[in-house]
Amino acid sequence: MSDSIHAWAAPKAGGKLESFEYTPGPLGPEEVELRVESCGICHSDLSMIDNDWGQSVFPLVAGHEVVGIVESAGEHVKGVKVGDRVGLGWFAGSCMSCRHCLAGNHNLCTNAEQTIVGRHGGFADRVRCHWSWAIPIPGSLDALKAGPLFCGGITVFGPIAHFGVKPTDRVGVVGIGGLGHLALQFLDKWGCHVTAFTSSDSKAEEAKRLGADSVVNSRDSKAMEGIAGSFDFILVTANVPLDWDAYLAALAPDGRLHFVGAVLEPIPVPAFALIGQRKSISGSPLGGPATVLDMLDFCGRHDIAPQTEVYPMDQIHDALDHLRAGKARYRVVLER
Amino acid sequence: MSDSIHAWAAPKAGGKLESFEYTPGPLGPEEVELRVESCGICHSDLSMIDNDWGQSVFPLVAGHEVVGIVESAGEHVKGVKVGDRVGLGWFAGSCMSCRHCLAGNHNLCTNAEQTIVGRHGGFADRVRCHWSWAIPIPGSLDALKAGPLFCGGITVFGPIAHFGVKPTDRVGVVGIGGLGHLALQFLDKWGCHVTAFTSSDSKAEEAKRLGADSVVNSRDSKAMEGIAGSFDFILVTANVPLDWDAYLAALAPDGRLHFVGAVLEPIPVPAFALIGQRKSISGSPLGGPATVLDMLDFCGRHDIAPQTEVYPMDQIHDALDHLRAGKARYRVVLER
Repeated sequence: MSDSIHAWAAPKAGGKLESFEYTPGPLGPEEVELRVESCGICHSDLSMIDNDWGQSVFPLVAGHEVVGIVESAGEHVKGVKVGDRVGLGWFAGSCMSCRHCLAGNHNLCTNAEQTIVGRHGGFADRVRCHWSWAIPIPGSLDALKAGPLFCGGITVFGPIAHFGVKPTDRVGVVGIGGLGHLALQFLDKWGCHVTAFTSSDSKAEEAKRLGADSVVNSRDSKAMEGIAGSFDFILVTANVPLDWDAYLAALAPDGRLHFVGAVLEPIPVPAFALIGQRKSISGSPLGGPATVLDMLDFCGRHDIAPQTEVYPMDQIHDALDHLRAGKARYRVVLER
Repeated sequence: MSDSIHAWAAPKAGGKLESFEYTPGPLGPEEVELRVESCGICHSDLSMIDNDWGQSVFPLVAGHEVVGIVESAGEHVKGVKVGDRVGLGWFAGSCMSCRHCLAGNHNLCTNAEQTIVGRHGGFADRVRCHWSWAIPIPGSLDALKAGPLFCGGITVFGPIAHFGVKPTDRVGVVGIGGLGHLALQFLDKWGCHVTAFTSSDSKAEEAKRLGADSVVNSRDSKAMEGIAGSFDFILVTANVPLDWDAYLAALAPDGRLHFVGAVLEPIPVPAFALIGQRKSISGSPLGGPATVLDMLDFCGRHDIAPQTEVYPMDQIHDALDHLRAGKARYRVVLER
């Protein structure tokens, strides 16, 4: 292992990525170092590069949908070994000892390390993490397509699994992009009746191909009125303000409107809109390692994979521009 | 049975109640008519009298925490018979055939009749309802105290039962009034660690007597900061805008902020406040008949009862004034 890691870093908020070298120091006893094979690009990479959430530290190496080979392992590493192909997502470490980690909710650990918050991520030749978040990729999956599962995929699979979505449920997916196009596939194979909500007519046919039974144009207020009271679960992957009253009205009794998209503007929720039919609103961050394993198994059994566009990592500027322009169909992956 | 029913009715929005007679017409085949023995007064009686929710029809006979004796029963009535002592709450009828009724969620029936919405309630000598909502009161309960269980009680018991609150949970009750003082008792006997949130220091000692392990003054921002991240379930019985950000912050991972109070102003919910720790916000209306039976059994086994102040029904003006003045400790009951 060489001492320095070569990466692509944003020098300042919104800055163009530059070639960047850093020396990671001694490998921790529970850490692994991965040789990056590929890395997906998530919208939250852009948010971190742009410091939209006020938590970025520069120079910032983004990238948190990594597929790589374990190249080095600290002396107390468990579960993975040198040579394993693993995935690394948004989380790079959890304390392992708090009640949330002990309960299998390492993603809710209040001391969790986030791969690109205050540390360097996967737009690089190597990246490090705690062994618990370096999750073996089954040989049945296409490794070059697996990266986006570790952030985009588990972000939508997590709540489907956690909140007990049932195969008999009528469900909706709002926003058909990197996350939404995976949610459609998961929910279709989950056995649900699936509706895609999109304001882009161009995505309607694709949404059906990905598993949607029906497509609703979310800007069509008549169409939105027509579906009132019919959804058990609506998963919001969009991160912009929408007509939340219409989505609350679209829920059936006991329905849940669930957010995984980082909508920054507060959502105005009338208590009456929840009380009358026992509705819920919620949000969630990804899923724990055991849920990631379930997701990978589910993907293998049901032939679920992100639809990707692959760029060589040294064309990272073009790749980011493509995503920023809203042109990604549906996930951009950088290959080394 | 005489033809006309004597009641107390509001002639117009906010109007002083007047003596009022009406003829209910033929008894429906699935209806029962109750001779009212007592009737609790709920804040929503005031809201309906004042037409706060825009759904009142005048003259309006409020009253939906009835204890009475079945005096007449239609030919297809099931479950209860003439002479039974029963309770009647917010709901007076459900269709019995929709999927929500068939699933035991008669309270979510979209065609449910509400006792005082478009029909006359329990501030009267007699009142009618569908047999499914005339629920037998066990002999082990004090009948004069039972009325408030059928609205205030089931409103807070319903979500505790439905959302799987666990005896190991740390829970909070916001607003210590007619609903909150029952919630404290339920949650204490449920086995939980219970915190009462109140802005009234005068209620702190009473809250502890009712089962609270601790009391937090919700206007003390330091105290609110000190409890961040610690509650699995917070039940909001207040119906005024509060510092919702502070309550969301008070939730532990996987925590739920649940509304049963009719807060009219929309609650601004930042998606990030839900996403990071997988939090939920929800609301609910009362509970189904089976849950009411569970509640009555639970009250009998644990000696749970509302703390009441009893007025003769012909002093209904004094009773309403007492409630409007915020002086009720904790539930006013009218006795005939």
